[in-house]
Amino acid sequence: MEHKIITLGEVMMRLSTANYERFVQAKNFEVTYGGAEANVAISLAQFGLHTTHVTVLPDQELGYAAAQYLRQYGVDTSAIQYGAGRMGVYFFENGAMQRAPKIIYDRFESAFAHLDPNDTDWDQVLDGATWLHWTGITPAISSSVLAWTRAALDAANHKGLVISGDINYRRNLWQYGQNPQDVMPDLISKSSIIVAGMTDFENCTGITAVDYEGACQLAQKQFPQVKYITKTEREAISASHNKLQGLLWNGKELIRSNIYDMSAMVDRIGGGDAYMAGLIYGLLHMKDEAAVEFATAASVLKHSIPGDANLVSVEEVNALVSGNNIGKLLR
Amino acid sequence: MEHKIITLGEVMMRLSTANYERFVQAKNFEVTYGGAEANVAISLAQFGLHTTHVTVLPDQELGYAAAQYLRQYGVDTSAIQYGAGRMGVYFFENGAMQRAPKIIYDRFESAFAHLDPNDTDWDQVLDGATWLHWTGITPAISSSVLAWTRAALDAANHKGLVISGDINYRRNLWQYGQNPQDVMPDLISKSSIIVAGMTDFENCTGITAVDYEGACQLAQKQFPQVKYITKTEREAISASHNKLQGLLWNGKELIRSNIYDMSAMVDRIGGGDAYMAGLIYGLLHMKDEAAVEFATAASVLKHSIPGDANLVSVEEVNALVSGNNIGKLLR
Amino acid sequence: MEHKIITLGEVMMRLSTANYERFVQAKNFEVTYGGAEANVAISLAQFGLHTTHVTVLPDQELGYAAAQYLRQYGVDTSAIQYGAGRMGVYFFENGAMQRAPKIIYDRFESAFAHLDPNDTDWDQVLDGATWLHWTGITPAISSSVLAWTRAALDAANHKGLVISGDINYRRNLWQYGQNPQDVMPDLISKSSIIVAGMTDFENCTGITAVDYEGACQLAQKQFPQVKYITKTEREAISASHNKLQGLLWNGKELIRSNIYDMSAMVDRIGGGDAYMAGLIYGLLHMKDEAAVEFATAASVLKHSIPGDANLVSVEEVNALVSGNNIGKLLR
Amino acid sequence: MEHKIITLGEVMMRLSTANYERFVQAKNFEVTYGGAEANVAISLAQFGLHTTHVTVLPDQELGYAAAQYLRQYGVDTSAIQYGAGRMGVYFFENGAMQRAPKIIYDRFESAFAHLDPNDTDWDQVLDGATWLHWTGITPAISSSVLAWTRAALDAANHKGLVISGDINYRRNLWQYGQNPQDVMPDLISKSSIIVAGMTDFENCTGITAVDYEGACQLAQKQFPQVKYITKTEREAISASHNKLQGLLWNGKELIRSNIYDMSAMVDRIGGGDAYMAGLIYGLLHMKDEAAVEFATAASVLKHSIPGDANLVSVEEVNALVSGNNIGKLLR
Amino acid sequence: MEHKIITLGEVMMRLSTANYERFVQAKNFEVTYGGAEANVAISLAQFGLHTTHVTVLPDQELGYAAAQYLRQYGVDTSAIQYGAGRMGVYFFENGAMQRAPKIIYDRFESAFAHLDPNDTDWDQVLDGATWLHWTGITPAISSSVLAWTRAALDAANHKGLVISGDINYRRNLWQYGQNPQDVMPDLISKSSIIVAGMTDFENCTGITAVDYEGACQLAQKQFPQVKYITKTEREAISASHNKLQGLLWNGKELIRSNIYDMSAMVDRIGGGDAYMAGLIYGLLHMKDEAAVEFATAASVLKHSIPGDANLVSVEEVNALVSGNNIGKLLR
Amino acid sequence: MEHKIITLGEVMMRLSTANYERFVQAKNFEVTYGGAEANVAISLAQFGLHTTHVTVLPDQELGYAAAQYLRQYGVDTSAIQYGAGRMGVYFFENGAMQRAPKIIYDRFESAFAHLDPNDTDWDQVLDGATWLHWTGITPAISSSVLAWTRAALDAANHKGLVISGDINYRRNLWQYGQNPQDVMPDLISKSSIIVAGMTDFENCTGITAVDYEGACQLAQKQFPQVKYITKTEREAISASHNKLQGLLWNGKELIRSNIYDMSAMVDRIGGGDAYMAGLIYGLLHMKDEAAVEFATAASVLKHSIPGDANLVSVEEVNALVSGNNIGKLLR
Repeated sequence: MEHKIITLGEVMMRLSTANYERFVQAKNFEVTYGGAEANVAISLAQFGLHTTHVTVLPDQELGYAAAQYLRQYGVDTSAIQYGAGRMGVYFFENGAMQRAPKIIYDRFESAFAHLDPNDTDWDQVLDGATWLHWTGITPAISSSVLAWTRAALDAANHKGLVISGDINYRRNLWQYGQNPQDVMPDLISKSSIIVAGMTDFENCTGITAVDYEGACQLAQKQFPQVKYITKTEREAISASHNKLQGLLWNGKELIRSNIYDMSAMVDRIGGGDAYMAGLIYGLLHMKDEAAVEFATAASVLKHSIPGDANLVSVEEVNALVSGNNIGKLLR
Repeated sequence: MEHKIITLGEVMMRLSTANYERFVQAKNFEVTYGGAEANVAISLAQFGLHTTHVTVLPDQELGYAAAQYLRQYGVDTSAIQYGAGRMGVYFFENGAMQRAPKIIYDRFESAFAHLDPNDTDWDQVLDGATWLHWTGITPAISSSVLAWTRAALDAANHKGLVISGDINYRRNLWQYGQNPQDVMPDLISKSSIIVAGMTDFENCTGITAVDYEGACQLAQKQFPQVKYITKTEREAISASHNKLQGLLWNGKELIRSNIYDMSAMVDRIGGGDAYMAGLIYGLLHMKDEAAVEFATAASVLKHSIPGDANLVSVEEVNALVSGNNIGKLLR
Repeated sequence: MEHKIITLGEVMMRLSTANYERFVQAKNFEVTYGGAEANVAISLAQFGLHTTHVTVLPDQELGYAAAQYLRQYGVDTSAIQYGAGRMGVYFFENGAMQRAPKIIYDRFESAFAHLDPNDTDWDQVLDGATWLHWTGITPAISSSVLAWTRAALDAANHKGLVISGDINYRRNLWQYGQNPQDVMPDLISKSSIIVAGMTDFENCTGITAVDYEGACQLAQKQFPQVKYITKTEREAISASHNKLQGLLWNGKELIRSNIYDMSAMVDRIGGGDAYMAGLIYGLLHMKDEAAVEFATAASVLKHSIPGDANLVSVEEVNALVSGNNIGKLLR
Repeated sequence: MEHKIITLGEVMMRLSTANYERFVQAKNFEVTYGGAEANVAISLAQFGLHTTHVTVLPDQELGYAAAQYLRQYGVDTSAIQYGAGRMGVYFFENGAMQRAPKIIYDRFESAFAHLDPNDTDWDQVLDGATWLHWTGITPAISSSVLAWTRAALDAANHKGLVISGDINYRRNLWQYGQNPQDVMPDLISKSSIIVAGMTDFENCTGITAVDYEGACQLAQKQFPQVKYITKTEREAISASHNKLQGLLWNGKELIRSNIYDMSAMVDRIGGGDAYMAGLIYGLLHMKDEAAVEFATAASVLKHSIPGDANLVSVEEVNALVSGNNIGKLLR
Repeated sequence: MEHKIITLGEVMMRLSTANYERFVQAKNFEVTYGGAEANVAISLAQFGLHTTHVTVLPDQELGYAAAQYLRQYGVDTSAIQYGAGRMGVYFFENGAMQRAPKIIYDRFESAFAHLDPNDTDWDQVLDGATWLHWTGITPAISSSVLAWTRAALDAANHKGLVISGDINYRRNLWQYGQNPQDVMPDLISKSSIIVAGMTDFENCTGITAVDYEGACQLAQKQFPQVKYITKTEREAISASHNKLQGLLWNGKELIRSNIYDMSAMVDRIGGGDAYMAGLIYGLLHMKDEAAVEFATAASVLKHSIPGDANLVSVEEVNALVSGNNIGKLLR
Repeated sequence: MEHKIITLGEVMMRLSTANYERFVQAKNFEVTYGGAEANVAISLAQFGLHTTHVTVLPDQELGYAAAQYLRQYGVDTSAIQYGAGRMGVYFFENGAMQRAPKIIYDRFESAFAHLDPNDTDWDQVLDGATWLHWTGITPAISSSVLAWTRAALDAANHKGLVISGDINYRRNLWQYGQNPQDVMPDLISKSSIIVAGMTDFENCTGITAVDYEGACQLAQKQFPQVKYITKTEREAISASHNKLQGLLWNGKELIRSNIYDMSAMVDRIGGGDAYMAGLIYGLLHMKDEAAVEFATAASVLKHSIPGDANLVSVEEVNALVSGNNIGKLLR
């Protein structure tokens, strides 16, 4: 059976300063488009999988440009709808050395936040799909988006899709009156693969534990249908130098990938989404140990590429996993 | 007495495509800042007048950058306040030939729209000022901004400032429940100089007439304190080629400036604001005929400069009025 | 029945100098992708039609980037194949004033030129399609491409598609041993709409006449299945200033569009392709007179946009045809 | 009492190659403005202090642009004068790896060098000020500038301002006939805070010692009014990788800050000025130990920002001092 | 005999704002190099003539870069010397529409101004040369440069070279104590071809006349060895639109070239130098009428190219003269 | 005797993505020109040696631009010929972190590949020369180029030039039917200095050995006229971080240079050519030990400069060898 992945979530315009300029120095912004789930979709499309991103964009040129951006990188945009409301934007100032990178969000009142859950026919959108991926950013946006997300997960469950969810707790969202702990457990209980760190667990499920393995065990008790729990551990020596490791709990053991030393980093945005895409690809094609290695290596490569999206092929990720030709000139 | 001009209104971030690219082609946006009233302030500062712009900006880096932009060009930013809310943005795609330039506004829910009228002490802000300039864009934004504008005009009237208002009717604003015809006549009645075209009159005061002179006569009857009514007439042969003329009704006659042929235009945004700044300067320093010539020539020069602001000196405007060295290399 | 357009032909990388620099001054080239037929496809996709471009690209990153470029603008790239050979390239130096624009082609030995005609299953590619568009550039490239083109036209004829062909005689092609007069008449005889100027007719069919109407009459005698013959007439006052008119022979009369004065031109490459796309859209939705006006206006707008592709909507073309808001700022 | 800082010195145009290009490769230069003292002023303005920079700029557009640059970043430019003479320029080629960064100065015969000391009314300029900062670059420029500097220090002393001086010996200045050892001791004797390294001491005062502590003790004997002596120690592993430590002699002990490892440096120009600004802020708000930590952390952050000026806030410096979130993405 | 042209004069760095920005808006400057005589040399090198430029540049990277710039375009730089002093600079702000282009010179105290006339062995430099070209800018710089120029002309006369001089009176030069009327007649009397307008004649020779033909006749009486007198007449409709005509007095009649209408001009700097180069080429290869047409067409093409230098070939100039393919796309 | 170096080989256009973008992200390419042998020529010209590069370029603007590029950096281009055929191109995507840099060659069917060996009069080209440098890339291109290379080496041997050859085996060349082992030994036997790694030896001569010293000893037996064998050893920790060491076998011993740690690398292309140029300069001016240190330090500096060419002076290389001021700001 051919894999067909569905991702859902907001797509924002990203406006970045260049050459390590601070916001107040900028006379130009680089324009790209992204969002946690769309980033996963783009990465999976580079891996050769059929991916469809479902979202609502503003019905004007900036919305069309966002769809074009996804389509350019091979994502199926036929399920995208256009509605009233603004384009969500985020401003990005890259960091360097000991100076942290910085994001200013400007995403409220977007066309996505104002979507009408009844406008999406999930049975049709999910037709033929095998996997659905969502993140905790989506239900945090508005009550209509929450209803839309729930409908998607219910339809996906009904059709037997694999469902993965990246908890991704964001303190500056959740401003429409819902508490994540009242919302997220229900969504998690419909998923079989969960990305969650310790604070995600605490904020969205109330689970606390001494260590990650303990948290995974507690989560599995609370959400017995969850088969995999995963996260990356990032050590920030500076904005230009991080270390990265992937962790995957498969119900039996906590598998740890190699630790990668990432110096001279180019752009860390989307590193987690690149990991998620790598893990989806990995779980579809490899054993658990290999999958987490693939996912972590994919994430590492993302840090060398400007923009949100991980524009690397399966062959390039495998070359890094196998340690071949790292950094050597390819002719 | 030294002239000291106060302008009030929203400042937005302007994001422009470059090299005549369409929005969907853009990989970079040029970043500048502007707004109808702030554009007047910047232009007057280049003419050597002391100008203070009063506004509310978001309390984060983008708001600080907007203030820096005004300060850079010599505008006094000491009365700017910083508050919650987003940075208003507008996206600009320049036109060329028969293809029209295009603006996409993204200004709702800005820090300015959410200002608290009680936060501004107009007595203090207007202290020592001699002229206040407002536009019809401001009362169109929100009810709190309307209240803030009214307070400004009342305080200015009380202190005896000259008040000029650019009616500038914008159909896509006025979304907070007020009808301009219920609001604008009151504001106009507090002003002695009014910029208004035929449709501005019709939409904001109900005045209709066969020609501009007739409209001015009707307006003067309705608003007897108004001493000057003015507008520019623009003939668009193409996006790159316009003709421009200034018209000034001084209560007795309708004065028409020379008509300027503007081919190879660079950027038409802010042309009206440049005219207004030229007129303020002109009325302060010249007779009526000279003032409208100065204002029109100032506006013409704006069309040769990228960005919203008219970065020209009094000497440069006068050289154009006098017809000296037009387009000749200055060493 | 929904319209579904197929275009076939080579896609090249276009490398352009910026800011009117000459080749010897360039330190950067702008990178876009285009080709006469792909340009038609992109333009039709902006008009909302389903378009599929069929080509062969090199099986490496530059080939993938070319496909991404088409996909970005909404062209269906699912029929594109990847093979051995290089990416065709053309270098473009824009002209200004009395200095002519200049193209240096570097397209020989491309993956497209080396395609294997047996690799394309035209029955499958044309399934559900209603229109096929080809140009005389394609059969001029190599004998295998000629065979591929013939197979496409035969399959399209068999399935009853409308076939349009842009003769587009290029002296610097046809280097593989075939004479256009031995090849083109057969291809023309399979088409019902033909773009051809006087020299195209002479070089590809031997038809000569005193004027265009006469040539059309002769052509119709020789190719009785041809229903429409069309071309644009361009008067070049300078590289920055042209005049443009569309001419359409519909078997009964020669219809001439309005003449457009194009000063301050931005980029004239793809003007003919924009005309062709406009004509296809026009003939599908309008009467003949309206169609040629739509096509000519579409071509005019192309001259205001950098790159090969005409990124305008039906509404924008109609606005120019109707003479509304030409060059006026749209808010 | 509110702090109000005065800085005085030349402002130059800085023209930098981009992307690690060498001078001979450059087709564009980045344009910013700076100078040792103006850099201190800009940094202090970001820290929220009122700072006024006093200088003379050429009376033409480039001079106005330099003033705009300072004003943009919040420096009070009301004391700047405009005179005859050229704009001082310096060309900067950034280094990378083992290749050193390089500056070519072109500052002679500037408007600043030709200032008339009688044109500045120091009593008025210093009115309300609490601190004056000068550097040894200024008296090295010309005899009139030396007289101007002396007058400033005398007026400041008379008014009871704190005076800080950065010795900053530059071998390629001092070309107008004065020996620094005949000039600098007098200026130092009017200051209570001195930045000086071992070679600065030797060249400007004749003081030599085995180590820095010894030099400080000797200097304090010679200049008993000096309360603080300070410098940074920089270890250059490569142009991209330095280590940095601040040292502060407070009359009792030599305090050493943490050593920062700076790899992937962006721009090292202005690192010393950022340290000085940090120290001024620190000494005004903290104890000695905290002040030198604040100053060193401020300097470290400067190395991550392109241009001369340290565009960081007090909160950002404190975050680095406290070791919080170093290099972590801020949302 | 092969033609070998010698040009002498200062080479300056040109720093230009881009995209019609004013100086105060610029964040980048474009870097090129030029000078009236070097511009002639570059243009002649494009025409295929051997040209050697003689100058003195500063002995540092910026001087080397200037020499590289000339060498890049085929000028023989083997006679260039390197000395102490700065690089002359000029800042250029392009004009548009009714806004004039502007130059700010910063050329005093350059390495060229401080050259030692004894350092150039003119016998060796002129060995094998057939033509020497100088301009009135050179003797206006300093007394040592004047002596150097005189020595060059004397040596050239002695060796029998053709000598052409472009009077090019510049009011803001001549600051070293010499009056042009005391210097220029002697230099003119050593030349056989002179470029001079009416004000050049008046300021440099005292000749005044009713019209240009009259001035030429008077000049010929005063300088009987002069065979040709020439100038261009430029009518400036705006900064973007000029008309241009060449005039050549050959001792018998005043020949006038076609008048060219130059709209959408790109860069007018160097237009006169392009004319001069065209005239030198023309007089060497054509009759007088053809020479002035060639020269004028060459100058026209210069206005379409950014930078000082006229990077066009003989074929391109001839195509314009013959009226072929003006502005038509060349494939 | 003055040294005069001849290099021969193809010059290609290099098109590079910027800011670590991948090919599919690029909207602009940086344009430079290079080739293994031309890179050596440019570097030697910076060292002050007279160098002449011999090649064939296409007879159109891109070919002229390539020659201009070499001439700009001081290479004598008088022996370059222009012929039919295309400009060889290579596309370069820089790597970062663990992501490898990547080259896509597009060099087949170039003007160089199609050169006619009889068009070069080697006796004339080599007149006065003292050294000839070739690489194994050249004979790998086509049979006519092989014949041309052989003729060059024979003429050079006959005239007694020193001949150096960089074996530089490239698997993706050698497509014209020749086996390197049938061609290269003959060319090596005409050279006295050889750059070769272990795989070069194996592929081009069949020599295999346990270690490099062993391979050198075998090579010397087979090619007794070879006096020096050399290579660099590069350890790639990542694309941004390499270590580099030079090795020189002088017939008696294998000399190893210092190992340089290169982090924050800018551009590694041309590193080997920079080494070769350094070695040529070194062997001409120093003892063997110093020569290999000079060559290795030159190569290290190349990695800090964008583009193929090593734009550093002898003084800069010596400073690195001596360990002075590494990475310290030069004023």
